[in-house]
Amino acid sequence: MKPYLLQNDELKELVARIPGWEIISNQIAREFNFGNFIEAFSFMTKIALICEKHNHHPNLENVYSKVTIKLTTHDLGGITNLDQIIASEINEIYEK
Amino acid sequence: MKPYLLQNDELKELVARIPGWEIISNQIAREFNFGNFIEAFSFMTKIALICEKHNHHPNLENVYSKVTIKLTTHDLGGITNLDQIIASEINEIYEK
Amino acid sequence: MKPYLLQNDELKELVARIPGWEIISNQIAREFNFGNFIEAFSFMTKIALICEKHNHHPNLENVYSKVTIKLTTHDLGGITNLDQIIASEINEIYEK
Amino acid sequence: MKPYLLQNDELKELVARIPGWEIISNQIAREFNFGNFIEAFSFMTKIALICEKHNHHPNLENVYSKVTIKLTTHDLGGITNLDQIIASEINEIYEK
Repeated sequence: MKPYLLQNDELKELVARIPGWEIISNQIAREFNFGNFIEAFSFMTKIALICEKHNHHPNLENVYSKVTIKLTTHDLGGITNLDQIIASEINEIYEK
Repeated sequence: MKPYLLQNDELKELVARIPGWEIISNQIAREFNFGNFIEAFSFMTKIALICEKHNHHPNLENVYSKVTIKLTTHDLGGITNLDQIIASEINEIYEK
Repeated sequence: MKPYLLQNDELKELVARIPGWEIISNQIAREFNFGNFIEAFSFMTKIALICEKHNHHPNLENVYSKVTIKLTTHDLGGITNLDQIIASEINEIYEK
Repeated sequence: MKPYLLQNDELKELVARIPGWEIISNQIAREFNFGNFIEAFSFMTKIALICEKHNHHPNLENVYSKVTIKLTTHDLGGITNLDQIIASEINEIYEK
């Protein structure tokens, strides 16, 4: 799949399609909260497995039970359909 | 905590106290099933974090979405209260 | 890549091409030893990332500082070029 | 072990004792670089196992092959001997 930059209309709909995520300049970001470090880190392991498979890696930040994920497509300089797909998969995993 | 070998009465009650586990000779064992490899491996990551903390390591076996865990206390040659405690923590994690 | 079963000549050369691995009936297997559980489990995490990417999952077994990996291609009922490729990647990771 | 805040003299010696780390206000921080995401994430898994064992969790940040770790002791509002011990263990792991 060749990623493409989301256009104005798609960006407007983006936040509705991937609940919990925010657009922050040219990235999308979401914070995830867990009961403890073990749950937070095992969630990060799931994210690692998904992102390596897509060969598209986020900015991952963890402090104890909190994980913050930021996605952008560096090669294209902004938010693409690939970021949206991965954010959507991350939401699915989180809601399980 | 100094582990001690479970005695006959404690072994009889063991399976009731840690549902899903079986006594197989001098070990306790349980099989865990997940929807896919990502879920199975992230469960193994949780187990790794718990067991390293207790400095008590199981036999871990994984094939795709299935994880089998066997616990015994090698130093004492059998099933101890430490195995029971860890099995109980593993059940809690699995049921979440 | 469509995997295919290795033929007699390829199987004869296999063990030379992926040092440390043995053919055990219709699988290839290798044992890996580390200094402690932390090193063993972080090696398993690397294997997990590689195998999920290839969508081809081994039998993984861990006891403390030892990891045993067995590879076969269930769909084709034997050892394929895909098993060889992954075994070769695992060797590269181990030797680093 | 009860952690205590490092005093002026100890802070002066700190950077020499844990090479690569910098004092940034009330934290110590170091950036670690790897060949790819798989190596970076397996390093994070080692850090997770160590920190959960000490029950002392850093700020972990990862972008592709780079991992940034920041340590402080929130309860005491600054850098303690516990931060130093963990930074030292992290260096040992990284140098292996």
